[in-house]
Amino acid sequence: MRDNVEIGIGREARRTFHLDDINLVPSRRTRSSKDVDTSWNIDAYSFDVPFVSHPTDALAGSTDFIAAMHEQGGLGVINAEGLWGRQADLDAAFARLAEAAAESAPAATRVLQELHSAPIDTELLAERLAEARSTDATLSVRVSPQRARELTPALVKAGVELLFIQGTIISAEHVAKGGDPINLKEFISELEVPVIAGGVSNYTTAMHLMRTGAAGIIVGGGRNTSAAALGIETPMATAIADANAARREYLDETGGRYVHILADGEIETSGDIAKAIACGADAVILGAPLAAASESPAAGHYWQSSAAHPRFPRGVIERDEFALAAEEPVSLASLLHGPSSDAFGYENLCGGLRRAMAKCGYTDLKSFQKVDLAVS
Amino acid sequence: MRDNVEIGIGREARRTFHLDDINLVPSRRTRSSKDVDTSWNIDAYSFDVPFVSHPTDALAGSTDFIAAMHEQGGLGVINAEGLWGRQADLDAAFARLAEAAAESAPAATRVLQELHSAPIDTELLAERLAEARSTDATLSVRVSPQRARELTPALVKAGVELLFIQGTIISAEHVAKGGDPINLKEFISELEVPVIAGGVSNYTTAMHLMRTGAAGIIVGGGRNTSAAALGIETPMATAIADANAARREYLDETGGRYVHILADGEIETSGDIAKAIACGADAVILGAPLAAASESPAAGHYWQSSAAHPRFPRGVIERDEFALAAEEPVSLASLLHGPSSDAFGYENLCGGLRRAMAKCGYTDLKSFQKVDLAVS
Amino acid sequence: MRDNVEIGIGREARRTFHLDDINLVPSRRTRSSKDVDTSWNIDAYSFDVPFVSHPTDALAGSTDFIAAMHEQGGLGVINAEGLWGRQADLDAAFARLAEAAAESAPAATRVLQELHSAPIDTELLAERLAEARSTDATLSVRVSPQRARELTPALVKAGVELLFIQGTIISAEHVAKGGDPINLKEFISELEVPVIAGGVSNYTTAMHLMRTGAAGIIVGGGRNTSAAALGIETPMATAIADANAARREYLDETGGRYVHILADGEIETSGDIAKAIACGADAVILGAPLAAASESPAAGHYWQSSAAHPRFPRGVIERDEFALAAEEPVSLASLLHGPSSDAFGYENLCGGLRRAMAKCGYTDLKSFQKVDLAVS
Amino acid sequence: MRDNVEIGIGREARRTFHLDDINLVPSRRTRSSKDVDTSWNIDAYSFDVPFVSHPTDALAGSTDFIAAMHEQGGLGVINAEGLWGRQADLDAAFARLAEAAAESAPAATRVLQELHSAPIDTELLAERLAEARSTDATLSVRVSPQRARELTPALVKAGVELLFIQGTIISAEHVAKGGDPINLKEFISELEVPVIAGGVSNYTTAMHLMRTGAAGIIVGGGRNTSAAALGIETPMATAIADANAARREYLDETGGRYVHILADGEIETSGDIAKAIACGADAVILGAPLAAASESPAAGHYWQSSAAHPRFPRGVIERDEFALAAEEPVSLASLLHGPSSDAFGYENLCGGLRRAMAKCGYTDLKSFQKVDLAVS
Repeated sequence: MRDNVEIGIGREARRTFHLDDINLVPSRRTRSSKDVDTSWNIDAYSFDVPFVSHPTDALAGSTDFIAAMHEQGGLGVINAEGLWGRQADLDAAFARLAEAAAESAPAATRVLQELHSAPIDTELLAERLAEARSTDATLSVRVSPQRARELTPALVKAGVELLFIQGTIISAEHVAKGGDPINLKEFISELEVPVIAGGVSNYTTAMHLMRTGAAGIIVGGGRNTSAAALGIETPMATAIADANAARREYLDETGGRYVHILADGEIETSGDIAKAIACGADAVILGAPLAAASESPAAGHYWQSSAAHPRFPRGVIERDEFALAAEEPVSLASLLHGPSSDAFGYENLCGGLRRAMAKCGYTDLKSFQKVDLAVS
Repeated sequence: MRDNVEIGIGREARRTFHLDDINLVPSRRTRSSKDVDTSWNIDAYSFDVPFVSHPTDALAGSTDFIAAMHEQGGLGVINAEGLWGRQADLDAAFARLAEAAAESAPAATRVLQELHSAPIDTELLAERLAEARSTDATLSVRVSPQRARELTPALVKAGVELLFIQGTIISAEHVAKGGDPINLKEFISELEVPVIAGGVSNYTTAMHLMRTGAAGIIVGGGRNTSAAALGIETPMATAIADANAARREYLDETGGRYVHILADGEIETSGDIAKAIACGADAVILGAPLAAASESPAAGHYWQSSAAHPRFPRGVIERDEFALAAEEPVSLASLLHGPSSDAFGYENLCGGLRRAMAKCGYTDLKSFQKVDLAVS
Repeated sequence: MRDNVEIGIGREARRTFHLDDINLVPSRRTRSSKDVDTSWNIDAYSFDVPFVSHPTDALAGSTDFIAAMHEQGGLGVINAEGLWGRQADLDAAFARLAEAAAESAPAATRVLQELHSAPIDTELLAERLAEARSTDATLSVRVSPQRARELTPALVKAGVELLFIQGTIISAEHVAKGGDPINLKEFISELEVPVIAGGVSNYTTAMHLMRTGAAGIIVGGGRNTSAAALGIETPMATAIADANAARREYLDETGGRYVHILADGEIETSGDIAKAIACGADAVILGAPLAAASESPAAGHYWQSSAAHPRFPRGVIERDEFALAAEEPVSLASLLHGPSSDAFGYENLCGGLRRAMAKCGYTDLKSFQKVDLAVS
Repeated sequence: MRDNVEIGIGREARRTFHLDDINLVPSRRTRSSKDVDTSWNIDAYSFDVPFVSHPTDALAGSTDFIAAMHEQGGLGVINAEGLWGRQADLDAAFARLAEAAAESAPAATRVLQELHSAPIDTELLAERLAEARSTDATLSVRVSPQRARELTPALVKAGVELLFIQGTIISAEHVAKGGDPINLKEFISELEVPVIAGGVSNYTTAMHLMRTGAAGIIVGGGRNTSAAALGIETPMATAIADANAARREYLDETGGRYVHILADGEIETSGDIAKAIACGADAVILGAPLAAASESPAAGHYWQSSAAHPRFPRGVIERDEFALAAEEPVSLASLLHGPSSDAFGYENLCGGLRRAMAKCGYTDLKSFQKVDLAVS
């Protein structure tokens, strides 16, 4: 049933697809985009738009951004292992990064590595989380699987409402010789806060992660630089569809426990958002597409959390020359809901999603997961 | 029978093809291009060449262009929702657009949006339609499905001979909660003017549109910016061939009612025209390829009707630097019939079509729809 | 057996391959390139290398080039409808072309069209053919199918030894209403000179052309600009292999009449030459790859015969900036046989072919047509 | 079982895959990269990392480089037919090459050809080999199949420990009319030094080379310029997998003789290394990726051994502008083991390999050859 090819005698590889490889096919009666409902509910939380920001200081590194995401109906996620707990003077840190980025990409990475080499001051972090909590936004924080055990108690104390346990590639169980392997099933069962965990990239790892009791799983590893560095790439159309198949199996296995799928990778435009949901995602994680927003603390710069790794960074600090040169930076409201003069799906992301759904004849996200697809 | 691929476990996508993916295969005795007949007849109207201009002010925004298209054997289509009914001073409007386009693409889009935010003055529109009618050209006007009901009476009064009901993606029936859904079947049955409607992109929507009683349907959505913004793209070779299959079925269903297929998308050169017809089109809608003509009111600039959308523009204002710098702009006569010093199919579009047909051994458009195809 | 795909419902297209799509697979004992025999024999004529120059004044527009091709073991072909019979002062003509080419491509095409609008002076042509004949080279001349009947008597009188009847796309029989169709079978049967005719691009047209009695057929249409202008492209790997299949059938049909296959298209490097022969070609027609030779009359410029068409030119005048800037132009001897400091197969074309054959374990051209192939 | 396509009627080609076409799929429990063992053992020799330098003076042209490779756990291979035996003043030779490379690629090739036109002075070579031997590194030297017979005695006398018999494309037996064919089986059986021979590119030639008694075979032809020049290309994913299949057959045939597979081609990043091993390689040969190392004698320049061919060079002298402009050249230690600020797998090559293995859930090279693969 799977579409395998023989790459050499006796060695097979599975054929996989990127979001760029697929298209939506409108084959039903069109709807009005005003009638489209884009709301997303996970655990006790409801969102008007199925948009979550990638856990990087380049986005939710400011309370302003978190509040603005909330106002626009989405969710901003704070990186507990980012700069908030490491740098007392955030403005100075962002300024140094911008300066280094103007010089060269490696220079910027070195500064990012240096800023992250400072230890995490949990009191400083707690103080800032309290400030973020003072907005009405759902307090969402990301930890890595490696430090989840260590940092989670402080986050719970700070009132975290949705915990993201997110690394580039994770598994339900991590094995380390002589170390203390983290078993997410045990870890999650002891928590009262709902957990969203990932990223995973195929049926097996998605299924195992669902079985940990996570409320949601993340498919994909963010902006992909792992292809060159690790030979690992997550073709998102295939990965999301596989996770969706794992969910169907898990629904049957559990008699109805629905685990949400969040897509984090290959998503640059409103068209990509529509495709990710069409493949089976319930929500999408947006990174670089939100970095131009005026509420972003490093507006015009973007990096993902894994770009700060001390020895093996994955991802760089990107400069959006267009945004940096803009006289009037675009607001998050415009980025998500328009109006816009952009014709390529970089702005009015939710408007694009609504129109895609309406043109294809769907009015809610869940049924839109069944839209016809084509590859060319 | 359909060529499906599994993009992920349990999720299939259909394999589709662009005009760029296919080639014509000459496998019969060659003919003289002088013996080729390119005439096209729809309803009571006959045309020497199967070329229709995209309904944009960038083309049929001047009576000169409409007259020239008529003289050269084709058909110019006026956009009833364009500038004709909104701007008293068209020259000033075109000048502002050209100026903004020289500055930046978003600036041009903003001006286009502003010019289209003026209400439609039906008297002004009627006056200009009367002028267009005073040429010998068949009076063809386009309305959107959304405003068809409202604007059509005035157009009929103005003597419209062929009515285009055209949006980027439409369906025979549009559903809107609490609103007034447009049912094209009912709408068309009440009209005495023949209707050409679209665009559609697959078998089902083409079939439904044929059943509305339209004289012709449009396949494709014009110049494609929907791929990035909506995740929707119309691979034209597949879409035209599907519509052709729907027509065969519909011919059988109706005992012989022949609905014309007009292709609007992926057509830049004479080779693309030949391919579109080879896939099953009876005529092609030409947009940007005609914008360099000296008779175009915005000569050297091109935009399609959907580029003026107030919140979600699809398409931008394109500048043809080469045309803008030309000392002697090329006439529509040369663009369509040559002679030419161009070797890449941008000029002498009809000459290219004639030669393609002759080299493949065909002398009329209908039989040319059976030419052998290859993909590479 | 054929590999067809359905491009739309009920419409199939054949999958075809370019030379760029294929690779040779060395799977036998390697040989010494010194032991490789590249000789090619057709009718009474023998050549050390299977290289024929495209019939353009840019190559065999000078007797020097023809003599040099002969010295290096190949064959130069004169274009009877080129400048030789139209322009008394060839040097001036080449100079005007070079000047216009420095200005712009369309300007150069206009000059080429103008130079070819002069009528053919058969006496002038005969004079120049006599000069060419005074070298030891086999006198080979090309006419188009359209003018073959008119020009051939003069060519025979001038002592033509191999007649090329070559157009971009031809068929064994050309049909023209009220005109005088050319039937190559009848035409060739009346000639005593062996004929090489083409180009064709598939099994059927190759078979029909073999049945005309031609000594050789040409597969392909030269440098391809027909894809954009006509929607017709000749994927050379498939076209040559198809002609080879037609030859096997024709050999059986005739009890052993062997028709040579000359490949004219997609050949830029020594690797392309090897691939064309691997697909079934007996010889290759080289155009642009020879234009840098110091013996070329327009050294550094190249155009093919079809680029001079008065209304529908196919191909442009190309400038080889590198060759034009070279202090010491490369000789045809170096281009064909080296030595060379080039690592990409643009020079030492025969050396590359020899090494390809030797690495794959073959020592003659005919058996090399069976080498293993791969696509990637 | 093999995936063949018909490129033309009756002519098949095998579908093949490049390393770029494939991805690793992490589908098991993740491991700690600290637990990964990258050691490689061949014959009596052990290496901490499975990295061998391509036999070019651009790398192991200095004893410093050889010593550094050894210190970092890998193996540097000396080219016996390179500059060591031909040029008394190596520094001057490298300086001339750098100067010519700054001028143009052909100029650099001409200098390289000239420097290699000097005869090999075996005493000078022996002297330099003795110096290399004085480091603790395993003395590894490469000869071509053509000169293996002539040069090997001197190398054995100089204490060579691993002999590489390497040409771009070789076979177990080379046939030359009237010459002295080299039969590697006989040649290797008479040697006491273990031999690594190649390159080969498919099942048959790999199998024949294994049967010569070689301890290891090389798959691939280094940096590929043969595609353009010879029409021969080695898609490495397929070639390595085929050699792996040949090894399984040969293991069965011999009752357990394990021949190592070294991959030499398409390897630019740590991700490529991981993919080559995933396809079945035991070790990889690194060329250009090591040329930026401060220990490289021509730091910032790279060429492979075949680029010096007097008449038919394959490969050019490449300049790494980034490395040449760097204030502090990167050490081989950093290139192989980090730390690094590079996010694209060009530095910390071993770190990338370790992480790829760990993320996929493998802790040793041999089992990693079974990791799941995908193509997209």
